[in-house]
Amino acid sequence: MSTKNTPATRHPATRHIVSINDLTDREIETVFDVAQSFLRELPDSHFPYRIGRSTKIASDCILASLFYEPSTRTRLSFESAMLRLGGETITSADPATSSAAKGESLADSVRVIANYADIMVIRHPRDGAVRLAAEYSPIPVINGGDGSHEHPTQTLCDLFLLKKKNKRLKNLKVAISGDLRGSRTIHSFVYALARFGATIMPMAAKGMELPPHVDQRLREEFRCQMVSGKADGKGDGDAIDALYVTPEEPHQQSLFAASELETNADAVGKKVDAVYVTRFQKERWADKEQSYPKIDRKFLSEPKYSDASVMHPLPRVGELDAAFDVDRRAVYFEQAAYGVPVRMALIALLLGLKGKSLHKFTGGFERPKYPLYDQPRPIGIRCANKNCIVHDPMETQYVRNKFYVVKTQSEAECKLRCAYCECDIEDFVVASRKNKWFAADPAALVRADDQHFKDLIVFAKAAEAAEAGFHSRRAAAEPKPARRATSKG
Amino acid sequence: MSTKNTPATRHPATRHIVSINDLTDREIETVFDVAQSFLRELPDSHFPYRIGRSTKIASDCILASLFYEPSTRTRLSFESAMLRLGGETITSADPATSSAAKGESLADSVRVIANYADIMVIRHPRDGAVRLAAEYSPIPVINGGDGSHEHPTQTLCDLFLLKKKNKRLKNLKVAISGDLRGSRTIHSFVYALARFGATIMPMAAKGMELPPHVDQRLREEFRCQMVSGKADGKGDGDAIDALYVTPEEPHQQSLFAASELETNADAVGKKVDAVYVTRFQKERWADKEQSYPKIDRKFLSEPKYSDASVMHPLPRVGELDAAFDVDRRAVYFEQAAYGVPVRMALIALLLGLKGKSLHKFTGGFERPKYPLYDQPRPIGIRCANKNCIVHDPMETQYVRNKFYVVKTQSEAECKLRCAYCECDIEDFVVASRKNKWFAADPAALVRADDQHFKDLIVFAKAAEAAEAGFHSRRAAAEPKPARRATSKG
Amino acid sequence: MSTKNTPATRHPATRHIVSINDLTDREIETVFDVAQSFLRELPDSHFPYRIGRSTKIASDCILASLFYEPSTRTRLSFESAMLRLGGETITSADPATSSAAKGESLADSVRVIANYADIMVIRHPRDGAVRLAAEYSPIPVINGGDGSHEHPTQTLCDLFLLKKKNKRLKNLKVAISGDLRGSRTIHSFVYALARFGATIMPMAAKGMELPPHVDQRLREEFRCQMVSGKADGKGDGDAIDALYVTPEEPHQQSLFAASELETNADAVGKKVDAVYVTRFQKERWADKEQSYPKIDRKFLSEPKYSDASVMHPLPRVGELDAAFDVDRRAVYFEQAAYGVPVRMALIALLLGLKGKSLHKFTGGFERPKYPLYDQPRPIGIRCANKNCIVHDPMETQYVRNKFYVVKTQSEAECKLRCAYCECDIEDFVVASRKNKWFAADPAALVRADDQHFKDLIVFAKAAEAAEAGFHSRRAAAEPKPARRATSKG
Repeated sequence: MSTKNTPATRHPATRHIVSINDLTDREIETVFDVAQSFLRELPDSHFPYRIGRSTKIASDCILASLFYEPSTRTRLSFESAMLRLGGETITSADPATSSAAKGESLADSVRVIANYADIMVIRHPRDGAVRLAAEYSPIPVINGGDGSHEHPTQTLCDLFLLKKKNKRLKNLKVAISGDLRGSRTIHSFVYALARFGATIMPMAAKGMELPPHVDQRLREEFRCQMVSGKADGKGDGDAIDALYVTPEEPHQQSLFAASELETNADAVGKKVDAVYVTRFQKERWADKEQSYPKIDRKFLSEPKYSDASVMHPLPRVGELDAAFDVDRRAVYFEQAAYGVPVRMALIALLLGLKGKSLHKFTGGFERPKYPLYDQPRPIGIRCANKNCIVHDPMETQYVRNKFYVVKTQSEAECKLRCAYCECDIEDFVVASRKNKWFAADPAALVRADDQHFKDLIVFAKAAEAAEAGFHSRRAAAEPKPARRATSKG
Repeated sequence: MSTKNTPATRHPATRHIVSINDLTDREIETVFDVAQSFLRELPDSHFPYRIGRSTKIASDCILASLFYEPSTRTRLSFESAMLRLGGETITSADPATSSAAKGESLADSVRVIANYADIMVIRHPRDGAVRLAAEYSPIPVINGGDGSHEHPTQTLCDLFLLKKKNKRLKNLKVAISGDLRGSRTIHSFVYALARFGATIMPMAAKGMELPPHVDQRLREEFRCQMVSGKADGKGDGDAIDALYVTPEEPHQQSLFAASELETNADAVGKKVDAVYVTRFQKERWADKEQSYPKIDRKFLSEPKYSDASVMHPLPRVGELDAAFDVDRRAVYFEQAAYGVPVRMALIALLLGLKGKSLHKFTGGFERPKYPLYDQPRPIGIRCANKNCIVHDPMETQYVRNKFYVVKTQSEAECKLRCAYCECDIEDFVVASRKNKWFAADPAALVRADDQHFKDLIVFAKAAEAAEAGFHSRRAAAEPKPARRATSKG
Repeated sequence: MSTKNTPATRHPATRHIVSINDLTDREIETVFDVAQSFLRELPDSHFPYRIGRSTKIASDCILASLFYEPSTRTRLSFESAMLRLGGETITSADPATSSAAKGESLADSVRVIANYADIMVIRHPRDGAVRLAAEYSPIPVINGGDGSHEHPTQTLCDLFLLKKKNKRLKNLKVAISGDLRGSRTIHSFVYALARFGATIMPMAAKGMELPPHVDQRLREEFRCQMVSGKADGKGDGDAIDALYVTPEEPHQQSLFAASELETNADAVGKKVDAVYVTRFQKERWADKEQSYPKIDRKFLSEPKYSDASVMHPLPRVGELDAAFDVDRRAVYFEQAAYGVPVRMALIALLLGLKGKSLHKFTGGFERPKYPLYDQPRPIGIRCANKNCIVHDPMETQYVRNKFYVVKTQSEAECKLRCAYCECDIEDFVVASRKNKWFAADPAALVRADDQHFKDLIVFAKAAEAAEAGFHSRRAAAEPKPARRATSKG
């Protein structure tokens, strides 16, 4: 039996899809090529999109569905996809009837269920939960939605629909409406849009704007430029509040440099290629009775929407008028139909059943390789997002305080990004174990060489560092502590 | 993508089984022929009825189970049937862990899940819910029980048992005991019995008689004659309360005409072929502690029951004595065993896997073709049954005010039958959009030609019509409204 | 249709696995041989144990999972096992969405579901529930855990792990820690250990010692000898509280005879082969906040544990430190991995798919053939265990007062063992129907020949016998009752 249970090193060859950014652009295109090969387009004009069980290539394989939150379409479309591939499924769809009801950690559940299946899809109410699961799993783990973090396979379906409708993925203009804060679907979607050079028009419900860490990441990592204020009048003349404009080749490994970008004035007035509507994620908000934008035929009667595909990840609960269903721009049921071939493709590639395998790609979005700050709990700073998996009492023994050190504007500044939920922390103090001092100097993490980096420990506040026995670097340079000791003695 | 989402026209070729009356007599016989071919009768004298996986004919097909109410036997027997056919299943068995928990409408759920499967079985707490689902589904939908409306596949199992035991379906005498009001199983069953010329002996628990709309439909559409009072003394001399006697060829398209029928005196004294026991449907009654008839060996000791098959759709909760299980007349577990081959047959025929296909039959019970009154909500009269799917808040945007105009005794009278739950409304007022009058004249719907029929709108009460701006036809002919206006002016 | 529904006689050829003692030692070895043939040991050093779908031998078979209590690993590993065999599964995992929610008895559910599947696994909160289910099932039933009674397939996995680690099953020394009272896993495990001649070191949490009936059965039926007090000093010198030492050939059909055994002094000081940790079964205890032993690296640092396999049936909830996972002695995830091949083997053998079949073995552990006292309810004594299935209101009509008459120390004494939950009753009174007397004379059951045995009826207390119209044998011989009658007259 393995004695190496340390997550990070245990199963280096296994690929997991937790974030849409775990896939490179080229991999996404590969998923779509394979999905197209599984798509059976029927001649029936009434319902032209369906797929048959085109293959038995997964006939020796089992998919485990592990859902800690309600789901119908994600779970059933994954299971349908596995069955259409010729495989089988085992399902735990209700946390109340699973071992989680007995208090078992996700980390343990994953390690056990990995013995029963060949691939696993997980949904969980906590942000970053599926990243934790992936750390412990020897078989591929797919994120079926984790808290408000990401929902990458929904984004794959969305992109596939956009590609079918527009014959391209590059340089689209997409409006996104509703709860941009709570919707994990939106978070995966905007990263992907930015990577393919889209112009993103946020139309958030009040107080439900994109979360700061997503907004900043769009600007910094994906090189989006924010354009606010009035439109240029060339289009329909509407006032716009804001627009993310991405250059055509956004995701170089170079860092954000605003001055390098020119405002793409065309983007402002351009017609909208797609309107993406999302429901109010009641389960993630305390105030259940907020006002919420409603998209209907009247809203969509503006000329700029005349050719827009109207998309929705579903379920909808009133924010998208059912009377619109008969409009030619209503593509949400077609969008849902692509769930099966796209997920068939992803499963087949993760299991290496199609000649090609995602395992052979170099792995993940070609994002900057940030240094990893990694400390066992309960030492030092913890993720500030209260819904992050690191704060789940059942996972206490299985999570670590892990953050990517992300450089910001200048090379001399940085912030911490939680390795699980990807929320950022900008203010913190850095301490040296060896020297016993601390300082409100985030950039110390950037300046340190490998040797010093391991010596550093981060605290949320000066008071915490002090309580842990560290001295302020400034204070340490003064003789006060010694004096105090003397005066007391 | 289809731009024609209007339910009625979208998928004209798809057959759904929502009511037992969606199958013709000939189709029912075909289902039984196919079911017999799937039945493996084992030589083991201890448990002679079982089926093997006789075929792989459905090996490319997926059944979706969509259950919004508790079920074990219906769901598991459908799934077992699909697996025995070589197919696969996907299951949503708990509304609390499905997208319904997020507030999704059935109409949306069905349109999405139709992309994941080839055929669907639905159970729902609302009467008529599965008719709504079928309107939106491009794949065949089978009713696994909807509210107190119908449960047609249970009836198929029941009829199959009756045919095996009696070597015929025609002219049986069947007693039905218990909750005849709340039991959807009973409703489907009595329609089928009447269609095959049965004599039906209702033995309802107090206050749980057949619902008025079922009773009337038996008499009118299925030409049952009600015989009440004392029996003729030829049998065991018992007093009888009521008996539905059906002529041998009941379901002509001609209407009810009591005078044409002669009382079948033989039916009264004849021995009972089957006693059908049902449980108290606690979940559908406010008063959970009603008295309820109990069927046991003593009850069944009367000579007229000496050869009766004792049937029960199960589960039972005390109304059928377990001590009776060892009696040779106890056939309820055999009845349950037929669930698999009968459902295998229905699935195979709906999918066209057996050479023949239900799609090729002319469709449905050869019932009268009633005109359809169809108005979008919220205009005019609504179904009076509060448990009808049209009153489900989640379906508001997806249902219409749809009623069949059913002629009654004389050709000049009619009532409205809800197209979803099949409950009737007899009193209503009819208004003319063009002329702006209304009148308490239901027969106006019958008298109108096609052109005028489209002009008519129905209200539940005169007050509602008046509120909507219509004038009483009589009042309109008088000068009063004008006078009032004048006096005010 | 069968008219012989009497459980005991209905399906004599069907084998069920309710207790680990339903398998002989030879059968257990056969299960392991077959399991080994299903085990695919991968060369990957990171995760060496996994199985592929090695076969299609069950391709015509369906497994029904019937779970009335939460489960993930047991249910999913059974389902994975069936799928790896090429079979299919149907699942009822949530009592709230099954017919049990409508009040259906287990006895009825089993008889219905037996028509849908070829083999069934059941979990239930009541002790002995699966024995009741097996009585009514024509297809093989496997116990997936019933109350605090047994969990035999977990024990098979545990033994398989022990055999893999120690290259033998005989004469192991195993420490068992935690909730020995509530853990059904422990109960099956200690019986099996004793049968294979193990030395068992109980380390119970306070108040959670082995239940008296398990303790006594170890001593009497499995000939364990209890050694208490200080260890002999040869080992690490620790104080020991108690130790069950079993002779090498423990389960002869001869009865317990303490004097025949010599204390195996070596057993006391011997190194421990395995430490078996169990979680606090909160759901079975009223006081949820008990103190509970925690096993961690410090505890396991004692020399006697230096080569011990540390086992856990999982889930764990804190009693086994996650930091220990990287220790080479941590084998619990490997233990879990064996769940699939072991269950594959058991299913294959019960269905006769491997040439050999458990049906052909002589059946069960070669335990003493105790006489069966069997009375319909509500006559006479009932099981004293309030969680026994006989006390479930839904099963009232389906259970009987059934007890094995187990001889104790001397041939002239006996106790009653419930045929369902296997708890014992030692004090009771025996009455004669014919003679109308009763006496506090348990041994009367042992002395009676077959003819008299049928005449006897047992009551829990003299008062109950008297109330039922029996006279005390002593009193009956005296003239007092007559006198009383006289004085009153």
